[in-house]
Amino acid sequence: MNKIALDLTVKDEPGALNAVTETIYREKANIAHISSGEKRKGKMKIYLELEDVKNKERIKSELGAIKYVLKLKDVPTFTEIYGKRVIVIGGGAQVAEVAAGAISEADRHNIRGERISVDTIPLVGEENLENAVRAVARLPRAKILVLAGSIMGGQVSEAVEYLRDRGIHVISLNMVGSVPEKADLIVTDPVQAGVMAVMPIADTAQFDIRKVRGKKF
Amino acid sequence: MNKIALDLTVKDEPGALNAVTETIYREKANIAHISSGEKRKGKMKIYLELEDVKNKERIKSELGAIKYVLKLKDVPTFTEIYGKRVIVIGGGAQVAEVAAGAISEADRHNIRGERISVDTIPLVGEENLENAVRAVARLPRAKILVLAGSIMGGQVSEAVEYLRDRGIHVISLNMVGSVPEKADLIVTDPVQAGVMAVMPIADTAQFDIRKVRGKKF
Repeated sequence: MNKIALDLTVKDEPGALNAVTETIYREKANIAHISSGEKRKGKMKIYLELEDVKNKERIKSELGAIKYVLKLKDVPTFTEIYGKRVIVIGGGAQVAEVAAGAISEADRHNIRGERISVDTIPLVGEENLENAVRAVARLPRAKILVLAGSIMGGQVSEAVEYLRDRGIHVISLNMVGSVPEKADLIVTDPVQAGVMAVMPIADTAQFDIRKVRGKKF
Repeated sequence: MNKIALDLTVKDEPGALNAVTETIYREKANIAHISSGEKRKGKMKIYLELEDVKNKERIKSELGAIKYVLKLKDVPTFTEIYGKRVIVIGGGAQVAEVAAGAISEADRHNIRGERISVDTIPLVGEENLENAVRAVARLPRAKILVLAGSIMGGQVSEAVEYLRDRGIHVISLNMVGSVPEKADLIVTDPVQAGVMAVMPIADTAQFDIRKVRGKKF
């Protein structure tokens, strides 16, 4: 694999990030993932996943020699720690029930070595929902979305199509509006919807969402 | 503010990310946050939040002119969409209950214009828990952690100290082990723990966790 993950603490100064990407480019490693963390007291964290690393110690010493880099350590990857993400968006009551189902099911798989996390946000309003649904495409490791509400359509439905075009599955509760007909699957019970969101993305489960596409449960 | 958020679709080739950071450095804008998304079909998404942008149209056209950049669009920031994050880690049963409390409370604040999301992972094992707790420091927008289990101590307690040193609050359920005594707050009821995790980070609530530090509820 030649894959490594690094947690860098750098000075929060212009040019710091560029010095890091330049060094990696020069060393001909591939940046599989990058994400900056919180800024605090003039410092910033940069989390890096590098692939095709020819010489691990060399790239670490090159990165450590950058004047902006204060600290550097090996860490497990986000995929190893938090794994694939189920995203749940909608009304508080339904989001909580879907989360309960998804967390229980993720627990059963994570015990067997899977890594699945369940990330949620309760929201109201078509525009807020549309933005949150579209932004799932920009979230690292997001694999499936559950829309957990009582009425969703219009711009939210367009956002569902946008996501599905990008390979992210969408499960909808059985609700008013056009969202259900745009989703991969309609599930009436919210706990069941949460469980069914985890199954297709777990390598430890056998559930191919393509085989039940368009069905209502 | 002169703050903008951009969703870039770039060719997944070595040098693409470096060309982007170089252009931003040359334009003297500050990268407030960067995060790369999924790679699919030879393309990769890069999400950028830029501050101190002198000329918004100019920097967009400079970025758009990079040979690796296929698409560029303005988007709302992750903070505007998903906001601050409550993280819940532990056993499935307790994580689900804490999430229920946190989601219900986040709903009440989000309706009033706050943005709080509730992100969870059910896990077993000291090493897995330790890694997951430490990695919260690398998660963007993570403000508070709830440890939701029945027994946690050892390396997990050290990870709790590590997090608190970095300004992230930690709430513990009332459980066996040394984690509770390392936490900011011990809460016996998991739903209440979820609610109490949202209150200190909501601008729409009045709850200063420092005033109840070390207490058990």
